[in-house]
Amino acid sequence: MDYAAESLKKHYEWRGKIEMVSRVPLDTCDELSLAYTPGVAAPCMEIHRDTDKSYLLTRRADTVAVITDGTAVLGLGDIGAEAAMPVMEGKAVLFKELGGIDAIPLCIRSKDVDEIVNTVRLLAGSFGGINLEDISAPRCFEIERRLKECCDIPVFHDDQHGTAIVVLAAITNALFYIGKKRENVAIAISGAGAAGIATARLLMSAGYGKITLCGRRGVIHSELEGLNPEQQKMAEITRPTCRGGLADALRGADIFIGLSAPSCVTQDMVRSMNRKPIVFPMANPIPEIMPDVARAGGAAIVGTGRSDFPNQINNVLAFPGIMRGALDARASDVTEAMKLAAAHAIADYIPRDKLRADYIIPSPLDRGVAVAVAKAVAEAAKQEDFQ
Amino acid sequence: MDYAAESLKKHYEWRGKIEMVSRVPLDTCDELSLAYTPGVAAPCMEIHRDTDKSYLLTRRADTVAVITDGTAVLGLGDIGAEAAMPVMEGKAVLFKELGGIDAIPLCIRSKDVDEIVNTVRLLAGSFGGINLEDISAPRCFEIERRLKECCDIPVFHDDQHGTAIVVLAAITNALFYIGKKRENVAIAISGAGAAGIATARLLMSAGYGKITLCGRRGVIHSELEGLNPEQQKMAEITRPTCRGGLADALRGADIFIGLSAPSCVTQDMVRSMNRKPIVFPMANPIPEIMPDVARAGGAAIVGTGRSDFPNQINNVLAFPGIMRGALDARASDVTEAMKLAAAHAIADYIPRDKLRADYIIPSPLDRGVAVAVAKAVAEAAKQEDFQ
Repeated sequence: MDYAAESLKKHYEWRGKIEMVSRVPLDTCDELSLAYTPGVAAPCMEIHRDTDKSYLLTRRADTVAVITDGTAVLGLGDIGAEAAMPVMEGKAVLFKELGGIDAIPLCIRSKDVDEIVNTVRLLAGSFGGINLEDISAPRCFEIERRLKECCDIPVFHDDQHGTAIVVLAAITNALFYIGKKRENVAIAISGAGAAGIATARLLMSAGYGKITLCGRRGVIHSELEGLNPEQQKMAEITRPTCRGGLADALRGADIFIGLSAPSCVTQDMVRSMNRKPIVFPMANPIPEIMPDVARAGGAAIVGTGRSDFPNQINNVLAFPGIMRGALDARASDVTEAMKLAAAHAIADYIPRDKLRADYIIPSPLDRGVAVAVAKAVAEAAKQEDFQ
Repeated sequence: MDYAAESLKKHYEWRGKIEMVSRVPLDTCDELSLAYTPGVAAPCMEIHRDTDKSYLLTRRADTVAVITDGTAVLGLGDIGAEAAMPVMEGKAVLFKELGGIDAIPLCIRSKDVDEIVNTVRLLAGSFGGINLEDISAPRCFEIERRLKECCDIPVFHDDQHGTAIVVLAAITNALFYIGKKRENVAIAISGAGAAGIATARLLMSAGYGKITLCGRRGVIHSELEGLNPEQQKMAEITRPTCRGGLADALRGADIFIGLSAPSCVTQDMVRSMNRKPIVFPMANPIPEIMPDVARAGGAAIVGTGRSDFPNQINNVLAFPGIMRGALDARASDVTEAMKLAAAHAIADYIPRDKLRADYIIPSPLDRGVAVAVAKAVAEAAKQEDFQ
């Protein structure tokens, strides 16, 4: 199918992929008086006395905002606020269908970090959570960090953490399947943007020690010039032993994670990896290396971002369940423990005896995944509350 | 019915009066690829090339934001952002049921005019229109004025203009019914807040000359101290001939419009009005004077804001149709001509031979009204485009 042409045609037919509907009757004056004035004064005053009641008396407990500034939309780059809205609506459809969450797509007509943070901060009382989306790096790091500090509701930048969580789940199952141990593996990540950095961080939280992060100018290390502050931090904490380009990073590595650009990995580079290499070229729509080429180069397990190849590593597996779990637990944040719990829930969703080289991760449309993730995330959130 | 107790109970049951739902199928990988990645890139790029396409490729053409800062909620005053949300959700239900509009309730946690204007301005690309709600005077005047200047979509402060439009419609029919002429009548308005001032302004636009506006300290005239800038302007343009209190304003007046406080009008004050007085005490839930008392004082026609008395003057009659019409015409503003068209459409909705003293305005739940208003408003908007 020509997805581009067909999708454009469908979007003209749909005229919006989501719709707000009423949940209350409105046929009589009495019904109007209960849903609106004068009756509505009573729930208003109840929330006035205790703001937390907004989670019981309005739609807040099931509502998140999906917010973008349109600066890093898919692989299209900075295409503008309004142009990002079809993606935000798509996200809202997935939030609803998989997480039972009402997602409100909002685009912000500004690229200024202060303006974006202020806008979201001032709206936080309207929602149970904030999902940030398609905001360019390194601005996305500061925006998320500042919003986490000033908002009393969970804030989650999906491009960072959604990807990181699903990659961690895929690695967990892939390593088990080929019989390697977490402690011993070396990982090379191509892409030092939002997703690459967040993935490196989460892998370290999960106990992976040997990580080499590569940006456009090669391995991120502390002597490399032109790094942004976030990349400098990554240079310090990953402490890579090798220098050079992506080929150098891949040599002897057990796992390749591609969150970068099309066709930047060759078959020889896969051959230079450690035995039984795991190769996840996730650039979209054209991966860092095509799966058949990677397999011919010796890759034991291959996963991509595409739906037309096996092992689709798609953050659809994470975000609906993460946010559902955070909402269910009334969590005030999405913590590292909650992200790890989500990754393990996704990995554990496939019984270990069912794992195969072309089935290390569940299908993005398997509706049971979000349910399992939500449960695990809510439990992790409650666990942290007790500590 | 005890609306307060019953409404609170219902709100706990409802847990939100609105809900976001999906309009697209999502059962197969192909459907996911069309609604989301990779297909969604095509509509994104279409909007990138022409921002106006957002009205065809997303839900924008049917979506408005309902925005409050919680400073003037119903008659409850400044109860806080979150506490206003049950009203905003009620408004969203009415927008949907009567105007076919998806309304997104948003509360802003700030009372600062600059912050509120900035927040709304930066979000304008997400919506087809902005409905401001329950923002205290005189801040609401500046907020609306500045937003109208900086937003390319219609901005409408319902507490001002919705009320003004419905009052104008009611007066139009009431005068016809009792056989008085617009040119000759004197009008006294009690309440110099958002609704009172907007009503005075719209009545003047409609050709009513003799208007006396009364605030808490009596008739608003240019020598009165402590007026806010908006009230000063009203003193200049209404040029009232009388001084003193509400009793003085009512003496000899043909029409009383109450947008103020309970029980501030006595039967003697109604008796002091001109023959066949029209009395609209709209304070909620307790009017400026009870209808039976006003009638016993000689009132020819009485209308209130309450659903349990005849002639309910409720802005539900205006806002769904106004916004529907503005969206249908892709208007960039809600102009004076569009407001006048709305008022006439509401008045004309009742055939003149069907008018009675207790039926000068349609029922708020008559679904035909919004349709008629939308048509008239869209026509007025297109007319202005031609000029």
